[in-house]
Amino acid sequence: MPVRCYEDFTIGEVVEAGPVLVTGEAIEAFAAEFDPQPIHLDAGAAQNAIVGGQFASGMHTVCLNMRLLVDGFLRNTNAMGSPGVEEIRYLAPVRAGDSLTMHLEVIDLRPSPSRADIGFLKCRSEMRNGSGEAVMRMTATLIFGRREPAGVARTP
Amino acid sequence: MPVRCYEDFTIGEVVEAGPVLVTGEAIEAFAAEFDPQPIHLDAGAAQNAIVGGQFASGMHTVCLNMRLLVDGFLRNTNAMGSPGVEEIRYLAPVRAGDSLTMHLEVIDLRPSPSRADIGFLKCRSEMRNGSGEAVMRMTATLIFGRREPAGVARTP
Repeated sequence: MPVRCYEDFTIGEVVEAGPVLVTGEAIEAFAAEFDPQPIHLDAGAAQNAIVGGQFASGMHTVCLNMRLLVDGFLRNTNAMGSPGVEEIRYLAPVRAGDSLTMHLEVIDLRPSPSRADIGFLKCRSEMRNGSGEAVMRMTATLIFGRREPAGVARTP
Repeated sequence: MPVRCYEDFTIGEVVEAGPVLVTGEAIEAFAAEFDPQPIHLDAGAAQNAIVGGQFASGMHTVCLNMRLLVDGFLRNTNAMGSPGVEEIRYLAPVRAGDSLTMHLEVIDLRPSPSRADIGFLKCRSEMRNGSGEAVMRMTATLIFGRREPAGVARTP
């Protein structure tokens, strides 16, 4: 199976991946390491005027999205990292027992203005729970190598 | 020590936290769980036209920033989560052995347009390595409870 390069993607391409089950243990382990707020750490202590009860750190959902992005989209490509993320929106709380799927769409492709050997792919990815409700939406840019550097004619 | 509420923050407030040491083991453990690309997973296999050699997942740096944000800024506040992140920029690779500090500035404060009991704080946080070089910059919004709901006069 050939490695996918910048030229192999198209705007409008859709990828689905998952599901990933979010356990209470995983919510607490992530929070203990990276986001130790009581609302994420302790089901008993969780109190919040905005979201009632314990819920996953938003960053936990972002990281699970990253994992599904790698498993479902980046494998067997020449992905070379990312210059950054345009936006993350937390739309609904993620609870212990939720099963999340990733829905990704390629929304833009543009060659690098400064390097002939790479291009940028912008994608919007959404995590949805078992009810189909979107819990997180993210727009990010990924870097892929080009099969043929820009400006170099293909040799037949 | 009183709990800090929305009213207690000011635009221009600066917070520094850290450092946190990023070990090779931590880079590989994070990558194995959330971002299993060879460029992050395996020092031997890491090859990339953009960044030479193994480097941490960008999301790993974002999560370490989150941890320093909690430890250095959110403790002893009535923080209630976040509606999202405006932007993340990956500025330089993070390597095994790097020691990162967080530099955060409050850049905006606004009451909720729909709820009298909460307000939004926007902050720009940067992670810097031991050479003082910025490796990641993020703008995010946080929700805090108000001490007194908007529109309710203080009783002397």
